[in-house]
Amino acid sequence: MRAAVLRGTGRVTVDQVPDPKIEEPTDAVVRVVASGICGTDLRGYLGRPGPVRGPRCGHEFIGVVANVGSSVRSIRPGELVVAPFMFSDGECHRCVHGAQSSCARGGMFGVAAGGAQAEGVRVPFADGTLVPVPFDEHDERIPAVLTLADVMATGQHAVHAGGRPTPKTMAVVGDGPVGLCAVLAASRLGIERIFLLGHHEDRLRIGQKFGATDLVSLRGAEGRAQVIEATEGAGAGLVVEAVGEQDALDTAMAICVDGGAISVVGGPHGTLDSMACSSRNITVSGGPVPVRAYLPALLGEVVTGKLDPSAVFDRTLKLADVGHGYQAMVDRHATKVLITL
Amino acid sequence: MRAAVLRGTGRVTVDQVPDPKIEEPTDAVVRVVASGICGTDLRGYLGRPGPVRGPRCGHEFIGVVANVGSSVRSIRPGELVVAPFMFSDGECHRCVHGAQSSCARGGMFGVAAGGAQAEGVRVPFADGTLVPVPFDEHDERIPAVLTLADVMATGQHAVHAGGRPTPKTMAVVGDGPVGLCAVLAASRLGIERIFLLGHHEDRLRIGQKFGATDLVSLRGAEGRAQVIEATEGAGAGLVVEAVGEQDALDTAMAICVDGGAISVVGGPHGTLDSMACSSRNITVSGGPVPVRAYLPALLGEVVTGKLDPSAVFDRTLKLADVGHGYQAMVDRHATKVLITL
Repeated sequence: MRAAVLRGTGRVTVDQVPDPKIEEPTDAVVRVVASGICGTDLRGYLGRPGPVRGPRCGHEFIGVVANVGSSVRSIRPGELVVAPFMFSDGECHRCVHGAQSSCARGGMFGVAAGGAQAEGVRVPFADGTLVPVPFDEHDERIPAVLTLADVMATGQHAVHAGGRPTPKTMAVVGDGPVGLCAVLAASRLGIERIFLLGHHEDRLRIGQKFGATDLVSLRGAEGRAQVIEATEGAGAGLVVEAVGEQDALDTAMAICVDGGAISVVGGPHGTLDSMACSSRNITVSGGPVPVRAYLPALLGEVVTGKLDPSAVFDRTLKLADVGHGYQAMVDRHATKVLITL
Repeated sequence: MRAAVLRGTGRVTVDQVPDPKIEEPTDAVVRVVASGICGTDLRGYLGRPGPVRGPRCGHEFIGVVANVGSSVRSIRPGELVVAPFMFSDGECHRCVHGAQSSCARGGMFGVAAGGAQAEGVRVPFADGTLVPVPFDEHDERIPAVLTLADVMATGQHAVHAGGRPTPKTMAVVGDGPVGLCAVLAASRLGIERIFLLGHHEDRLRIGQKFGATDLVSLRGAEGRAQVIEATEGAGAGLVVEAVGEQDALDTAMAICVDGGAISVVGGPHGTLDSMACSSRNITVSGGPVPVRAYLPALLGEVVTGKLDPSAVFDRTLKLADVGHGYQAMVDRHATKVLITL
């Protein structure tokens, strides 16, 4: 089959690779209908530290089950399914308690299993991983469902992990797909005032559509001051850090109210000073979202039309052009790229 | 008047000092009925880093209002009152939002205002700080109320800041007064299984009385393993770190379930690795408790007999003997010392 292959910094090609096949009785093989390019993929593409190092890449996909191993019970060949960006066994104490992203036998697609930017994927622990989607592969809700594999679930996690009781004011640092989805999650939760900090007009417009009430495009200290002033000196009750770089973590600390919460979902490549957070009674939460815990409920909302994050996809390309998709996202010509077969 | 004076490492004396008086219209002067010795005081006494450096000391007290400034409205001379360990103005955005321990004009008694181990205390921002107690200075509930000034409020904060939704399993690292009060707070909240990690039989017995279901007196890796085994490999859903040293913070990380929470109220003199917490979806909360936010409700429960943390006081001394009280706590001959006048 054909699959995206990361060949080095700035170079993704589409090559012939061996077809995926059932290797364990708990496996499924899925024919991919659509996949996504994620910010984590871009880090690998740019040679930055992170889990994605190639050669295979992609961890967001929706597809049709082609085959299942002998012990798989919950899905059948022919069904449309969506996968979390990580597979998980579904039966260890972590999975049972909703921390599937910590499953000791789990791992990320494109890292510990085949990449999703391909014609097919072998899915370990299919019962613990895949969720059936109740429509067919030509449905117009496919892009919306695909966001649940990672970015929308991450946005939801950012708001839910950090915000009980629900704060009145939230700020999102970063206008990438995760930040935009956090805005949408906050808006759905009824948070009254939602600041979105970012530097891309097209992305900020999506954020506004998703419910951001205050767009902050000023950089650095000026942007921080805008949030502090608009909250009468207080800062936001919940800050979602959706970038992962040190500067964004510092901004989160600067605009969070004492006694508030910071939710870190940017896949942090920097640190928060735990003593400084403690002295200000700031709660720090977040981490790699256990997508599988959120998927069934979010999927139900997409199916019934209550949730549609598909606007984060503003470019669609064929698998053969996946390399252009990476570069378009790096160049900020696309917010997020959908790959079709 | 007479007051405890920290004269150097291991040396607290009781000396004549100037009487406290009204300096600002928002002040009150309180005649002390009882005060406490806290673990934070001990750090100063032992010459360790921390806010307590002398010469005055003590930040937990209950007393009778002797005099109030011209603008004080909520308390009257003759009333019994309890103070949080920090004063706060009660009107800034942080106070209004329940983060009184971050009040920019606030500070700790014995550090930014007179010490509580004395015959009298000047209380800045009396309206924002003091809470009237609805009985007289001879009532037997005085020790219970005094715990609300710091340790019981801290225990309550530890459990509430870290645990929504309420976890089924909690572990408390440290059997000092704060750890014991955290056990009591957890027990009142209905947490089913409460591990208490400590090394002092008398304190563990108080913890058992307060609701601890599992006493863990083994040290280091053995103690950690006991919690992990007893939770079938999972760890505790909420860990309260009530010591503040690096070893206790490391233990908290080791016995917390992925996706769980660590509440740090030991006044940390060490750090938690924010990236490690994030990668395991561990929420970190806690900090200096905004006592004033918890005081009215907790006081109501003491008054009605629903809450009695007074067992943390297992030694009562006169102010003249306060130095012996410090040494008894350092030597672990007393869990917590109550000072009467």
